[in-house]
Formats: sequence, structure tokens, C-alpha cells
Amino acid sequence: MAARLFRGSLRWWGYRCAPPSRPAARCSHSGGEERLESPSAKKLTDIGIRRIFSSEHDIFRESVRKFFQEEVIPYHTEWEKAGEVSRELWEKAGKQGLLGVNIAELHGGIGGDFYSAAVVWEEHDLQGVRTNAKKDGSDWILNGSKVFITNGWLSDVVIVVAVTNREAHSPAHGISLFLVESGMKGFIKGQKLQKMGLKAQDTAELFFEDVRLPASTLLGEENKGFYYLMQELPQERLLIAELAVSASEFMFEETRNYVKERKVFGKTVAHMQTVQHKLAELKTHICVTRAFVDSCLQLHEKKRLDSATASMAKYWASELQNRVAYDCVQLHGGWGYMWEYPIAKAYVDARVQPIYGGTNEIMKELIARDIVHDK
Amino acid sequence: MAARLFRGSLRWWGYRCAPPSRPAARCSHSGGEERLESPSAKKLTDIGIRRIFSSEHDIFRESVRKFFQEEVIPYHTEWEKAGEVSRELWEKAGKQGLLGVNIAELHGGIGGDFYSAAVVWEEHDLQGVRTNAKKDGSDWILNGSKVFITNGWLSDVVIVVAVTNREAHSPAHGISLFLVESGMKGFIKGQKLQKMGLKAQDTAELFFEDVRLPASTLLGEENKGFYYLMQELPQERLLIAELAVSASEFMFEETRNYVKERKVFGKTVAHMQTVQHKLAELKTHICVTRAFVDSCLQLHEKKRLDSATASMAKYWASELQNRVAYDCVQLHGGWGYMWEYPIAKAYVDARVQPIYGGTNEIMKELIARDIVHDK
Amino acid sequence: MAARLFRGSLRWWGYRCAPPSRPAARCSHSGGEERLESPSAKKLTDIGIRRIFSSEHDIFRESVRKFFQEEVIPYHTEWEKAGEVSRELWEKAGKQGLLGVNIAELHGGIGGDFYSAAVVWEEHDLQGVRTNAKKDGSDWILNGSKVFITNGWLSDVVIVVAVTNREAHSPAHGISLFLVESGMKGFIKGQKLQKMGLKAQDTAELFFEDVRLPASTLLGEENKGFYYLMQELPQERLLIAELAVSASEFMFEETRNYVKERKVFGKTVAHMQTVQHKLAELKTHICVTRAFVDSCLQLHEKKRLDSATASMAKYWASELQNRVAYDCVQLHGGWGYMWEYPIAKAYVDARVQPIYGGTNEIMKELIARDIVHDK
Amino acid sequence: MAARLFRGSLRWWGYRCAPPSRPAARCSHSGGEERLESPSAKKLTDIGIRRIFSSEHDIFRESVRKFFQEEVIPYHTEWEKAGEVSRELWEKAGKQGLLGVNIAELHGGIGGDFYSAAVVWEEHDLQGVRTNAKKDGSDWILNGSKVFITNGWLSDVVIVVAVTNREAHSPAHGISLFLVESGMKGFIKGQKLQKMGLKAQDTAELFFEDVRLPASTLLGEENKGFYYLMQELPQERLLIAELAVSASEFMFEETRNYVKERKVFGKTVAHMQTVQHKLAELKTHICVTRAFVDSCLQLHEKKRLDSATASMAKYWASELQNRVAYDCVQLHGGWGYMWEYPIAKAYVDARVQPIYGGTNEIMKELIARDIVHDK
Repeated sequence: MAARLFRGSLRWWGYRCAPPSRPAARCSHSGGEERLESPSAKKLTDIGIRRIFSSEHDIFRESVRKFFQEEVIPYHTEWEKAGEVSRELWEKAGKQGLLGVNIAELHGGIGGDFYSAAVVWEEHDLQGVRTNAKKDGSDWILNGSKVFITNGWLSDVVIVVAVTNREAHSPAHGISLFLVESGMKGFIKGQKLQKMGLKAQDTAELFFEDVRLPASTLLGEENKGFYYLMQELPQERLLIAELAVSASEFMFEETRNYVKERKVFGKTVAHMQTVQHKLAELKTHICVTRAFVDSCLQLHEKKRLDSATASMAKYWASELQNRVAYDCVQLHGGWGYMWEYPIAKAYVDARVQPIYGGTNEIMKELIARDIVHDK
Repeated sequence: MAARLFRGSLRWWGYRCAPPSRPAARCSHSGGEERLESPSAKKLTDIGIRRIFSSEHDIFRESVRKFFQEEVIPYHTEWEKAGEVSRELWEKAGKQGLLGVNIAELHGGIGGDFYSAAVVWEEHDLQGVRTNAKKDGSDWILNGSKVFITNGWLSDVVIVVAVTNREAHSPAHGISLFLVESGMKGFIKGQKLQKMGLKAQDTAELFFEDVRLPASTLLGEENKGFYYLMQELPQERLLIAELAVSASEFMFEETRNYVKERKVFGKTVAHMQTVQHKLAELKTHICVTRAFVDSCLQLHEKKRLDSATASMAKYWASELQNRVAYDCVQLHGGWGYMWEYPIAKAYVDARVQPIYGGTNEIMKELIARDIVHDK
Repeated sequence: MAARLFRGSLRWWGYRCAPPSRPAARCSHSGGEERLESPSAKKLTDIGIRRIFSSEHDIFRESVRKFFQEEVIPYHTEWEKAGEVSRELWEKAGKQGLLGVNIAELHGGIGGDFYSAAVVWEEHDLQGVRTNAKKDGSDWILNGSKVFITNGWLSDVVIVVAVTNREAHSPAHGISLFLVESGMKGFIKGQKLQKMGLKAQDTAELFFEDVRLPASTLLGEENKGFYYLMQELPQERLLIAELAVSASEFMFEETRNYVKERKVFGKTVAHMQTVQHKLAELKTHICVTRAFVDSCLQLHEKKRLDSATASMAKYWASELQNRVAYDCVQLHGGWGYMWEYPIAKAYVDARVQPIYGGTNEIMKELIARDIVHDK
Repeated sequence: MAARLFRGSLRWWGYRCAPPSRPAARCSHSGGEERLESPSAKKLTDIGIRRIFSSEHDIFRESVRKFFQEEVIPYHTEWEKAGEVSRELWEKAGKQGLLGVNIAELHGGIGGDFYSAAVVWEEHDLQGVRTNAKKDGSDWILNGSKVFITNGWLSDVVIVVAVTNREAHSPAHGISLFLVESGMKGFIKGQKLQKMGLKAQDTAELFFEDVRLPASTLLGEENKGFYYLMQELPQERLLIAELAVSASEFMFEETRNYVKERKVFGKTVAHMQTVQHKLAELKTHICVTRAFVDSCLQLHEKKRLDSATASMAKYWASELQNRVAYDCVQLHGGWGYMWEYPIAKAYVDARVQPIYGGTNEIMKELIARDIVHDK
């Protein structure tokens, strides 16, 4: 999970510091009565706000933010050029305890190595999985390929979704998960793909040509992969939603600063009524979404977040993020187009969010299913 | 307050049954763990959902819904023609305890009469108040006029906002509130105005010509009117927001029913992918807004709802309502335009919501104020 | 056709005065060089603008506008109550030469009676036609029903689309058109339906119970109905688009007047920057659409308007109209909700436009067909 | 002007080939009667369509398209890395007659050198011009700086807008234009700025430190700069609008191809109803805008394009372009995020269009001026 925290965008994560999902004391609401909700906070990125968090979370958030200020931001331009973050970052993050804070039971056996693992799937391949594994004695022979978004190149271990039973009456019942390690014979990493944004995250096509996998690489039970994924997907979508709102909050504050400082014709940009209304619309949009995503985080903590609700969060928040990004670039004027401004990077990073983790169109399919068919 | 519950739209209220704001036992979350949130509920209008409510609320809601089924809906068309609801409705509602469930301390002395009172103001006239009261001994002489939206004609008592100190350095410091009774000399109710919707609610212009008011009609302290209004406004806006989400939930369910039954070319309308995605978008939009408004209701219960947050709720939810109304009419096809279908009435009723209680443009001004100026 | 000019909304027609489609002299562009296009005109409703018109059109437009000022507007409230316009209006309009300016060849034989005829179809029932006609000797026996939007109740003659060959391999090849006269045995007009808007136009369900039609009532050839309709549909859609843009232009000018006169806090509403930008957006949206619809009118005059292009015009312009209506009501504040203001009526009238004449969703189907399939 | 043709985006220009604005024979409409308009064309990028063009234009367009296929596209990735196009490109383009096809009279004297010139201004600095020139004998001494978007670094000659009369009662009356050549003492080009997109166009800040300019470098008359710019601005805006629609047409066709080929779950993406409706919406939006921009091109040819109309075109079309880009990336799924796909580049290139040439907010100010104030 934590590994995937990095998936989205390193830049935002520092500002965000997602909840470690450890219940704070007995009741996460206990001391929450006096915490401000986002709309009333001085800044949307303030530490110490939102009822779903406690002071324990605040301390954690502060340390993560510090980590990013010191270990990520100064090196980011370099990593953009390299097209991947440094291996050292992962190691440092691991030492600081920033990785693995929320590793699902399923992955328990992976241990310390998990920090460099990444999950090689996206749910819209579920029916379009282009990898398959056939039994050969107790081993499995893996074949196929996967376009692998983010950190695939650098990973030591990847989790591969493969068809293990083509005869299953639905693809969902014939899928298994495997751990595949770098260096295994037949496991080839294709060229890193150049992307519109997320330039410090590597993306590559992975090829599997007769990769021999011992039985121990099977995660969980055979043909139960779909079941495991289904448990993971709401969390995956929630994570994207969380990243999206956090990024929106960050962009809003960047822009608020800019328009309050930047002068045009002797007055600040913030002085204009149209700018003020635009900011009011953006903040409202963000705060409304924050309330929903926070509510989903609470449900998730109680293991009650269902697929349709998570899909709503993912689709809605990722569209928010792009809307906010568009408007915030505009409010920056020409400088919003310059790479040195964080808003320019945030704009292109945002664009992948409605696409990966299942396109928003797939989210709508999943939401619609419950609406149209009686549950 | 309860009187104003009726202000919005009688039609929706029955489906809604706003929270009586009485804390359920010690903790409103106590038994709430197992309640479904809106996105996961079978119907958005189901009784027994949303964590902010308890089973006590459910019972209350059920009785209100029954009241509306029996006492409102059968007579509504008649009231539309009359341009006002019957006086009997108010009396019955009062007997059932549906009025005055949440009367603010300020109005405590009004007693049983309050059910037919209504507050004659909207905050965007605060600076444009066209009524004034001058002292004459211990009495006040009231002059001016007010366009009075909803139930003014039928009211026995109205609360009038009047300028009592023109010299105040800001209009906000020279405003007082008065109780004016039907039948007072010089208090004239103009013709009922015909509206686009809300046809069973009367709207009229009220004229005050040298109305002599005894000192006892002054509500609270002289020149403190603005302060009282400021305390009421967030609640007023929250109420509109709540009505807006409830109406949206109602319209969604009406439309879901329609498209699942209506056939075109041998298949139900709900069968079409574009319809399914539209429903998914609407439901998401509604559920996201519901989370925010529920969060505001919680804040309001704790007297922590500030003006900007309430303004967000009002502006956002009333726009949601109109968007949902537009799309739901469309999904009904030609029948959506026919008055006999609830969706047609809901469409025109919705249109007033972004306007009254302070236009949404005023809401944005209020939200922006906190953004641009440091608090 | 002219009869249908009235279909949309009597109110707008006066401001509009659609082009009579008679080529002005040899070249419609001849004297057009100096005419202003909409964006540069003082008012969008000015007479004498737009290159596609000549001074001949201007004179015609002026006489129509006068007719509406004198013969329609003073009586409109009365007709709203009656739920239909007066029969006298149609007769006066006929005498003034306002009807039948553009009767298609097909209908040539209908002559003077046509003014009270109306076409009883909408293309989305083409596959859902619920009327059928069976041969009985040389006669036809008509059965079924039709919801009939606008002026059906008042009509002396209606054109009915009926299935005449159920065995046709596609419904499109088994449809014929019939003229059915008021008073024919078995032709029953149901109750007038109450609508959200268009209150002066009557709408009713028509029932046909064993109506015996002589062979002469068949329009054109048997089973060629689809072909005739296909020729008419682009014109029908263009008419709706034209009404939509004209209505938008009218609403814009009404609103411009309002905000320039109405004062808030001592300044006109038009003084606010947000209002100014909103007006700029509305005018741009209208002018862009006007350019497209004018271009379609030119194509139509040359009989080169194809189905997909007309569908674009209908869908786009009717959405424009509703967007403009929504924003213009908002700019009127509370008065925009009062029936006495033209903008309130315009708002509810607008809502039917994306629905009738084929819903906008059907328009998109038609547009998409050409995109996805190679022509 | 032609130099600026390159400003927008080299990529699109090849697909576009803007009208050379030379009247084709006597009447641009002469043979145009049979030309298809965009909505009916097989492809929006087809040569031989749109009534405003003649076969002469088609031939020109074909040669330009060929030039781009051969001279631009193969080298573009290289130029992206360099952050500027090659000087050779400009020279080849000049030889082919692709530059200077539409040089305004004002610039007549610049001759062959103009191809490497670029106009150093954007109208939103008109009141915020940060350069000034003071007379020193017959010479001028230039000081200040300018952020220079596109091709500034490579330029041999730039046109600088400078304040020459600070006492003028409005900035507009104290502005002059100067030609400044590379190599002049005190003319310093800052570092090339990295941008979100338009990566092959260089952008830099230009500094002027006591640059001595002989009287001959003054363009036109002293203090008349505003007047010259005002003549140029509508054309500048129209050009951006034209680029925007052309880019939209290109993106639409790219995407149409993609969804018709790409298969998901055994069917093409184009097979889905939601995709079809999205394409219908995009095509409609593009075609409607195309009609307006074509109409503006006609007005421009007749020197009748006013400032507000050109501002409408710029604002509307650049928003279209971004909307289309967003949706087309989405329809490409994950591949839309990969730099190797033209749609990814088109997406980031699009983002600058609502910003430069005067932000769209400034466009709205200009449009609103005519609406609110009587002309």
C-alpha cells in the first residue's frame, strides 16, 4: 500500500501525508470535536484539521512532510530527468517507517522487500489480462506482457495478475496473483516510456517469456486472484481519490498565494471579483469532495467501503483535480505554463488520474451496475 | 424555523423530513456504525440510513412522511390553484408537533403563534433594506415595503427587518427586528405574485405605511438585528442546502423508477449505456453533496457551522438540485414536461433555490471574503 | 411548415421572424457585404443584420414583429389560461400571409386548410409508432394513439404516421402518412395536458379507434412515409435550432436591459465584473451558435442540409437556450422567478426544446452514426 | 504575421495551413457552392472543404501539408530536446514562400528579415509594459525586460513595445514600437524557460539595458504604437482561434481513428454508446466553432473584424481546444498519457492558448465592454 502511495505523485504526497489508517486510541472522533473541518481552516493544507484525524496523525504527518521537504523536493528535477526516483529514496523512506504502514495481510510474507514491489495490475485488464501462467509440475510458466505504470522499472519485485484457468466460466474465476522478481530468466523490462507528466516515476512495458515461477510465488490461493483484487480495488481507488483531493488542496493554496501577491495594473489579482468568485467555486468544490473522501476513509477504516462508493470517490475526485488544475494554471497566467512553477507540473500530473486505476468510464460502469440492477 | 421548513417546497419536505436536530442520546454516532451511507443504500430516500441519524430520527421521519402522504399530497393540486396552502394544514402540522421543533431562543416568547409567522428578510437586502422604523415616544413607526417570498400572505405575524439607525457607520449596525401582526393599521398585503413554480406557496409584496408598533414588538435589542440575523443565516442556508439534496435524492429515485420501467424499442431506457452513465454521474454528484451537507448538519448541531461553510452548502447544493432536475426531466422524455409528473414540478421548484436565501453570487462573495482576506 | 413555426413558442416568434427562405433577388449575399453580423450589432435582436438576409427579409420581419406586438402579446396571458391560442389568431395570421410561406411540395394539395394542420409525429416514435392502418378495400382503418405536442387540440386536420406494413424488414419501410380530419368517426381528442411551460399551446393525446380513411387521405405513396419524414426532419430540427437561438438572443437583450437598470447597493448590477463576464460568455455562446445556425439556414436554402448537420444544430442550440435561460433568470434575481417577467416564461418554454423534435440523445445517435461508420 | 503562424504550434500548423487570406479570384464564394462544410465532410481535416476557400487555397494547403510532413514532423522530437526549432526550418519555409504571405503594410520595410522577427508583446502588458524608451538626440535609449513567448531566442529581430510618453493621459497614448536586433549592445537574452508543452518553441526573458536605438528603428509614428497594435490584435486573436479549431479538428480525427481500431473486450472502443455520444458532442462543438471562426475569417478578409468579435473567437476556440484535448486524451486511455502519442503533445500544447495573446479573462473584459456600455 505504502509503495503505492508513491505511485501517484511524489510531489503531492509530501503535502498530503495520507492517513496511516491506524485507529488513534480507541475512538478516532474522541478529540476530534474541536478540530476544524477543511472549509473553516486557515489553509486547506493545514496540519491539525479534519475530524477523522487525531493528534497522533498530525505528528506522523509532520514527520512525513519534513521528509519530503528534505529528501524529495531538492532532488525532484534530477529524478525527472532520470525518469525515475533514486533507489536511495525508497531505502530512506523505509528506514523512516514511511513504507508498509498499511500492508494488507495478504502481503505479510513479503517482508522488507515489499518496499520495492508494486502491484502490476489495473482492474480494467481483468477481462483483458494479457498474461497467463500454466502449471508445469509444481512450477508455473508465465507468459505475456503488461504496461506497467509507475515504478515498474525500478522494482525488484512485481505482482503479476495472470490467467491460470482459461476454462473458468468467467475471467474473474480463473485469475491468480504471482510475485515475480527482477532477474528471473525471461522477465524483461522494456524501455521506459516517456509520459506527459509524472516524469520522475518510471513507466515501462514488462515482458514475461517462459518465466519459471516456483509454487511459493503464488500469492494466496490459485484462481482466487480476482477475489484478492476485489478487496484491494476499493482501497486503490480511494488512494487515488485521496491523492486527488490533496493535490487539489495544494494547488488551491499555491494559487491563493500567487493571486494575493501578483499585481496587475497596480492591484493584486486577488482583488478582482471574477478571481474571487473563481476561488470561492474552487474551494467549495474541493471542500465538498473532501467531506466525501473523508467519509470514505472512515468507511474504509471500518472495512465497510464498497466498490461503487470507492468508484464514486475515484471518478469524482480525479475530475475535481483536473478542473482545479486547469483553473489554477489559468489564474497563474503565463507563469502557469512554465515548468518551474509547481502548478505546471501539477497540471500534467493530474491528467493521468482519471485514466489509471480504472478509467473513470469504468468507474461509472461499476456505479451504474448497482443503480440499474437491484442489489 | 419549522415554519420555514415549509418555505422551500412542501412537495419535497415529505420525502425529506429534515433532522429535528435533537441530539440522539449522548452521541449521534453511537448506534450509527452499522447504518448505511447514501451511496450504499438501496434507495437514496430510504429511512434508516446516514450515520448522523439515530433510530429516533427514523421514527420521527416516518411519521412526517406519513403526514405528507395523507395531508399534503392529496391536496396539493388544489393549493397550487389557490396559490397558497390551506390554513388547516398549518394547524394540523402544529398539532402533530411538526412545527416549532427547533425554535431559536430568540423567538421563544412568540409561543404558539409562531407557526404562522415567517421571517421577512433575505440577507441580500441587509444593505438594501427598504423598510425603516423611527421612534415615536416608546412606539416605533414602520414604513417601507418588502417582497415577501412564501407564505407571507397567509401569515398572521411577520418579522420585519428595518433600519433603525441611519447614522450607523455601517448598515449592519443600525438594523432591528420587529414582529408585525396582520390587521395592524397600515400593514397592507399586496397582490399574490404568480411564480414559475412553488405554486402552492404564496408570495406577495408587503407594504408598511406608518404602522405604529408598540415597544414590545421589538425582537431582542435595538440595532442588534444584524447580529441576530447573522446567527440565523447559516441555519437558513443549511436548510436550503438540505432541501436541495433531499429534492435531488427524490428526483433521482423517481427517475430511476421511470427509466427502469419505460421501454423504447423493446428495451428499457435504463438499458442504454448513456443512461446508465448519466445515472452514475447524478448519483455520485448527489452522494458527494450529501456527505458535505451531513457534515454541515453535524457542525450545526454543535453550533460550529460558520457563515462561509453554510454558504458553500447553499450554493453547491442548490446548483446540484438544478442540474439533477434538468437531467431527470430529460430522462423522462416528453413526459418530463407534463405537469402531472412530479419531475416537472420539481424542475420549476428547483429554480428558486439558487436565488432566494441570498443568491448564489452572494454566497460566493461570502466564501471569497475568507479566502482573500486573512482571517 | 408555417403551422409549425407556431409550434415552438409564440412568444419568441415575434422577436425572431424566421427567414421566409425565399431567395432575395439573385444572390443572398449581394447586398449583404455591409450588414453587421450578430457579434457587432448593437442588439442581437436588431433588424437589418446578418449577411444571410436582405432588405426584403427585413421588411417582412418588421411586419411580423408588428403582428406579434399587436395580435399576440396582448392576448397571451388569456391564452395561457385557456391552454390554447384563439382560432382567430391563425385566421388573422393566414390573411397577413404569415402562414404557408414555405409549404413543401408534398403538402401542396392541402391548400388553405393547412394552416390548421400539424404534423403528428416525432422521429423517435418512427420505430415506436403506436398507430397502424390496415387496408379495407380501398379504404384504410386507422387505430392507435399519439401524444400530440402543440396545437393538436385546435387543429382541424392532423397528419398521422402509421405503420402500414408490419412485415417490412425495417420499420422505416412500412410507414405511411395520412391526413385525418376533426370530426371523423373514431378520432377522439383526449384531455388537454397541462405542461411546465408553453402554456398557450395545447397538447393532447389523440386516439384513433377504427377511423375509416378514404384512399385520398394517403399522403404521397404507400410505405414511403419514412422517406417523406426524412426529407422533413432536417427542416424541423433546423426550425427548433432557429427558435432556440432567437429565444436566446431575446433573453440576452431582456437581461442586458435589466442589469443595466437594476441597482444594488447604489450601483447597477451591470457594474459588477462577474456580471460582465457572464454576459460576455453568454453573448459569445449565442453568437457562435448563431453563426452555425445561419450557415445551416444557407445550406437548407440550397437543399444541402443533411440530417447529421441539422441534428447538430438542434441539439446544440436547444442546450444553448436552456443555459442562457438559466443564467438570465439568475441575473434577474428573485424577479426572474415571477411569472410576469418574460424571462420566467422563457425559462420554462426552453425546457421542452431538448426533448421534442427528437430528444437531443437521439440527435447524438444520428450524429454519431456518420462519425463511427464510414459513409 | 507568418512568423507568428509558427508561434502557436508547429505540430498543428501542418494539418491546418491557415488561409493565406489572398482573395481567390474575384469572389471567394464563386465556386464554393459545392464545397462541403465541416459537419458533412468525411474528415474534418479534409482538403477541399469549407465555402470560404477555393481550389487555389487547396493547392496551397496541400503544399504546406507536404512541407510539414517532410520538413517538420521528422525533426520535431529533436527540436523538443533542443527547446527550439532549427534555423534551417525558417530558411526553408521562407524559400518555399510559406513566410510573409500576409505581412501587414506597417512591416513592409522589414523585407526578408521579417521571417526571423517576432512581435514582442501581448496586449495584457499594454498597461503593464515594463519597457520604456527615452529620446537622446535622435536616438532612443531602451530599458526594461519582457517575457517573450516563443521563438524569441532564435530571433534576429524583435519588435518591442515601449512606453515613450509617461505623461500621456492613458498608457495607450504613450506607446511606440521599435525594431531591436540581436547583437545590439545591452540587448540580453535570458535563459530559455522550460514549458509544460510547446517544447520545440523557445521562450525566454529578454532584457534591455540602455540599448541605443537609431531613429530608423521606430516603427511608424511615435506614440502611435497602441494604434498599430489595435490593428494587429484582432488578427492575432483570430490566428489563435484558427489554430485552436484546427488543432481540435486534428485531435478529433486522431481519436476517431484510435477508437475505431482499438479493441476492448473483443469490440472496438467506438462500439460503445457512451463513446459515440462523446464523439458526437465533440464534433458538434468543433463544427459550431468552425462556422464562427470561418465567419470571422471572412470578416477579416474584408477588414471588418472588430476587437470584440475577435476576442470571442479567441476565447471560445481556445476553450474548445482544451475541452477537446481533455476528452480525446481520455478516449485514448493510458496511451493518451504517453508522449509518443500526438494526443499527449496536443494536450499540453493546448493549455497555453487560453493564456497567451491576452488571457481569456481579458477577452471577456473586451467583449463585456461593448455589452455594458452603449457603443
